[in-house]
Amino acid sequence: MRIGVLTAGGDCPGLNAVIRSVVHRAVAQYGDEVIGFEDGFAGLLEGRYRPLDLNAVSGILARGGTILGSSRLERNRLTEACENVADMAVEFGIDALIPIGGEGTLTAARMLGDSGLPVVGVPKTIDNDISATDRTFGFDTAVGVATEAMDRLKTTAESHQRVMVVEVMGRHAGWIALESGMAGGAHGICLPERPFDPASLVAMVEERFARGKKFAVICVAEGAHPAEGSMDYLKGEIDKFGHERFQGIGTALAYELERRLGKEAKPVILGHVQRGGTPTAYDRVLANRFGWHAVEAAHRGEFGMMTALRGTEIVMAPLADAVSELKTVPKDRMDEAESVF
Amino acid sequence: MRIGVLTAGGDCPGLNAVIRSVVHRAVAQYGDEVIGFEDGFAGLLEGRYRPLDLNAVSGILARGGTILGSSRLERNRLTEACENVADMAVEFGIDALIPIGGEGTLTAARMLGDSGLPVVGVPKTIDNDISATDRTFGFDTAVGVATEAMDRLKTTAESHQRVMVVEVMGRHAGWIALESGMAGGAHGICLPERPFDPASLVAMVEERFARGKKFAVICVAEGAHPAEGSMDYLKGEIDKFGHERFQGIGTALAYELERRLGKEAKPVILGHVQRGGTPTAYDRVLANRFGWHAVEAAHRGEFGMMTALRGTEIVMAPLADAVSELKTVPKDRMDEAESVF
Amino acid sequence: MRIGVLTAGGDCPGLNAVIRSVVHRAVAQYGDEVIGFEDGFAGLLEGRYRPLDLNAVSGILARGGTILGSSRLERNRLTEACENVADMAVEFGIDALIPIGGEGTLTAARMLGDSGLPVVGVPKTIDNDISATDRTFGFDTAVGVATEAMDRLKTTAESHQRVMVVEVMGRHAGWIALESGMAGGAHGICLPERPFDPASLVAMVEERFARGKKFAVICVAEGAHPAEGSMDYLKGEIDKFGHERFQGIGTALAYELERRLGKEAKPVILGHVQRGGTPTAYDRVLANRFGWHAVEAAHRGEFGMMTALRGTEIVMAPLADAVSELKTVPKDRMDEAESVF
Amino acid sequence: MRIGVLTAGGDCPGLNAVIRSVVHRAVAQYGDEVIGFEDGFAGLLEGRYRPLDLNAVSGILARGGTILGSSRLERNRLTEACENVADMAVEFGIDALIPIGGEGTLTAARMLGDSGLPVVGVPKTIDNDISATDRTFGFDTAVGVATEAMDRLKTTAESHQRVMVVEVMGRHAGWIALESGMAGGAHGICLPERPFDPASLVAMVEERFARGKKFAVICVAEGAHPAEGSMDYLKGEIDKFGHERFQGIGTALAYELERRLGKEAKPVILGHVQRGGTPTAYDRVLANRFGWHAVEAAHRGEFGMMTALRGTEIVMAPLADAVSELKTVPKDRMDEAESVF
Repeated sequence: MRIGVLTAGGDCPGLNAVIRSVVHRAVAQYGDEVIGFEDGFAGLLEGRYRPLDLNAVSGILARGGTILGSSRLERNRLTEACENVADMAVEFGIDALIPIGGEGTLTAARMLGDSGLPVVGVPKTIDNDISATDRTFGFDTAVGVATEAMDRLKTTAESHQRVMVVEVMGRHAGWIALESGMAGGAHGICLPERPFDPASLVAMVEERFARGKKFAVICVAEGAHPAEGSMDYLKGEIDKFGHERFQGIGTALAYELERRLGKEAKPVILGHVQRGGTPTAYDRVLANRFGWHAVEAAHRGEFGMMTALRGTEIVMAPLADAVSELKTVPKDRMDEAESVF
Repeated sequence: MRIGVLTAGGDCPGLNAVIRSVVHRAVAQYGDEVIGFEDGFAGLLEGRYRPLDLNAVSGILARGGTILGSSRLERNRLTEACENVADMAVEFGIDALIPIGGEGTLTAARMLGDSGLPVVGVPKTIDNDISATDRTFGFDTAVGVATEAMDRLKTTAESHQRVMVVEVMGRHAGWIALESGMAGGAHGICLPERPFDPASLVAMVEERFARGKKFAVICVAEGAHPAEGSMDYLKGEIDKFGHERFQGIGTALAYELERRLGKEAKPVILGHVQRGGTPTAYDRVLANRFGWHAVEAAHRGEFGMMTALRGTEIVMAPLADAVSELKTVPKDRMDEAESVF
Repeated sequence: MRIGVLTAGGDCPGLNAVIRSVVHRAVAQYGDEVIGFEDGFAGLLEGRYRPLDLNAVSGILARGGTILGSSRLERNRLTEACENVADMAVEFGIDALIPIGGEGTLTAARMLGDSGLPVVGVPKTIDNDISATDRTFGFDTAVGVATEAMDRLKTTAESHQRVMVVEVMGRHAGWIALESGMAGGAHGICLPERPFDPASLVAMVEERFARGKKFAVICVAEGAHPAEGSMDYLKGEIDKFGHERFQGIGTALAYELERRLGKEAKPVILGHVQRGGTPTAYDRVLANRFGWHAVEAAHRGEFGMMTALRGTEIVMAPLADAVSELKTVPKDRMDEAESVF
Repeated sequence: MRIGVLTAGGDCPGLNAVIRSVVHRAVAQYGDEVIGFEDGFAGLLEGRYRPLDLNAVSGILARGGTILGSSRLERNRLTEACENVADMAVEFGIDALIPIGGEGTLTAARMLGDSGLPVVGVPKTIDNDISATDRTFGFDTAVGVATEAMDRLKTTAESHQRVMVVEVMGRHAGWIALESGMAGGAHGICLPERPFDPASLVAMVEERFARGKKFAVICVAEGAHPAEGSMDYLKGEIDKFGHERFQGIGTALAYELERRLGKEAKPVILGHVQRGGTPTAYDRVLANRFGWHAVEAAHRGEFGMMTALRGTEIVMAPLADAVSELKTVPKDRMDEAESVF
């Protein structure tokens, strides 16, 4: 069998572990050939690929990033690709394609599959917002980085009687904020799933100060937003000074809290450190298992599917399911965290 | 409501996070009183306890160990306790007891429950070998510590063309060895669930050296054992020099491999570092959720049960289920890891 | 002997280690009494203090922040303090005061000393910019945090063919940028000590892309600034849109590079995570030694001095020296780093 | 210029950073050629080497181990080498050799230098026991690993009222034990430099338990040994059961303490994890600077010397000095640590 593999979309710790696992299983167990397309679908469209043998994936298990490079696919190129799927499969002689990527990639994978390419997807998003799987690799690493940052910020906030607003990733789903906020012991958590009222945050901070806990850490997802009408003053400021003044909700919220509380409130925007670097053990195990099962599915001829974690098992889920609905934080998970506003 | 909490059995990262979560939920939400018994069931039997309010659990979320202390319960004291359950509940005025512990603790909890004490258990074991729950807190931290050790050992093994045998925890179940071995890229993994043949390990190492990979890392659970008759030479040595020469399977296996391979093979026994220190974000989240749901169950009057993770949800499982059967590594998980011997 | 201790100025990993070390040495060895003033000089002026015995400092060695709290001293309150030094010493009955702090604190310490208070200073700055000592505690931790961030960012930059601009602490001296840039393998380092020309950074990035290294990481101290006339376009933008658009040099430089290169350039502002959290082993050792030697100096009656590292030894340096001149990065250290622009 | 580089002796975090720094400076700045001999002096004697250009050292800065491999040199091969130095220099066409290694390597380097080979040494030892330099790279990483282990062990010791004996590296000099013991807050530290009496350790532990601190962590260098006559019982045991029973001082001491205290005392032998893995920022900076200065010295024709840290500066020290005397822990450093027995 000849298997093509590619990584597409945003960076995510564990990509290399999947690639390595695919190669180990396919080459060592089945005697397959594996080729890796460079820079995501671009490599597929432009015929840029290289053979991947055991040596090519040696030492990459713990490395962040992707040895294959990645890129985002433009829509018109995808259409073009779908029309030429048969040619591509012939050209590269591949019996299966394993694209590793997020929602966009899996949608593209599904379209390519519908056009006749034998595809087995592997889901990837640090945001953990793909419905069909309990968890995605990369998420645990992102949560770990954000939690460690909160551990550090707590001590400095406490020493200086200060409010810290930590902005973490999560544009549409608040999983990273929820779990890192919970693990880091944030006193307030703001998620995209529930508009927050700064007044409640102010009340929480004041209650803390009143009982002698003279600091607070607030964890806010980049996609969180204030309830309608709750930050009117800030809106006025933005109208006056331009939106650039408040780059992101973290900065805006810190400004708003400082104004209302009359206490120092500092924003910290974690940004890309959350998605780089060596994956946690959890993410490496999950990535390994996904790669292994993707090869198994290919050998069973089970195409149009993607790997998924359900409980403790890896199962195959239809690509169609994966991309039908965003997995957001449900209310009962917010209740458990208690500090969600 | 008045809730008693205690921690029993071996140390486990996340115990403090459970205690804190119980107090937060019970005190802040329900206005309950919480008391903590000291040194496990010993504190319950001897009436040693202290009140736990919000201040008492401040700053403990990320701390390893347990602020309540722990101990192992002797069997005869348990029988005694069961006979006096009614008195105890009256004496301490508790409406619910939340014992946090492993198999032994949960068995005791069940017996106390059968004797009439309103009990809600929280499972705890770094070994991850409790059937009723997908995972236990502390396990992820232990796997993380072992994985980081393997990351470090790989570089030194590679530079010195050496075989490293890393012994990790797991007396009856090989979960830590399986997952840290997979995450750390161990070339051989030995589990209690499957007797291994040193000859196969020797063949694997020689094959690696033959294709230019002049080192190997082998991850062995403390409870792993060689197949009948496969380490006869070593058995002879032990008969001659006494068992003390080979403390643990890691040391014995390194000795055996060195003898057979004619290459340096070094044992590294990770020991107690696996069970101490700050818990990972994953374990903190799980511990938090367990504590929260234990309080909820107490308020619903759902006794004789324990918290359990099933997929992404926390459910209540009968204590009887929890302790009926050890959860060992199944064959399909070994297959995925590939390097299991 | 009765010793007062206080922490003032910005937060710094290792403060608690100094406090603990002072108490251990003074109480356990000399049978001294130690009291800790709260919130820096404010506690001294307002008579807010608490006794510090062995129990009070138990478990704080590895904890970030300061158990005593900190604050910045207003100038007029300092003058007031100097006039009442004699009263204060009598009021609190202290034979020695050990203030732990940065340049401002040590200046205040010197003035209090000149006014008659027996003072032994302990220097503290994560910026490492105090002349009299080879290194200060907290610096190693800050460099470690920044280096780990750069390790993580490199993998994501590489996978996405992107330029990353990491802004680290250092308003007047570029030590953190120099050492974390060197340790993190930054391709460009910008320091307050040497105005940089964005054109040179652009040339460096283009040269890298030309030879196939399609990413770059640039480490910039918050106090770095462009050479006169080198960022005119940006200056025009700021005039047009207001300064708020470019909060800090990291964001401004990323914008400028993106414009000139026509490639994605992302800023990452590390901020307060650099100054919080558990100190590295190096910082703990240095902090321990400073505390120990401060007590020794007090017992020798060597006042008006501060602890300092010279080579491998701890010596006492006049407070006057400490604050006379900022220790900036010299040219030969920049040469060694090579990537300094 | 044509420069040869090799790494010899035990593994040490930072070796790759030196190699990379040599190549960066020599190739990018001077247009030199650099070749790397494989497996230490063995590669030099057997003519096994490869060219090292910028690509060859890309991405190795943060990696533990050595990309060149290492080995220990047998004495007779060294003599042989010295006799053929002139031939070797001609054969490989090298104008300078930069060997990176410990005492043995530097001694060999000196002999090769005396025989006419233009040599610039770079000292390397995680033990930090080379006289001519304030610190060596690798040491900070080893101390960091040992400190983190002690942080973890403290929480588990505390929860179980247990004594932990942690054996760290250091056969002839106790630097790692001293600094990690200090940073990890060990209650007892045993060094090779001062024979210890178990009775004093017993007294210390009992005093702790008496005042309610029911645990202790003892850090012991692998080369530490009991005072004459202080462990007679153990000596008897060894005579009876064979030396194998007590592999290393850590295990023996734990046994002895358990027997005397009547409390659980557990040994933890950290072993090779201390010398592998990614180097700390401190070690990377030092390694970088050593590499840079070694190339500078070669270009200045300053041979027979090695790089050394003195205070904050890198200087060149005669190879003869480096190997004349082992740098052990002096009494005043033990005094500072207080817990040294």
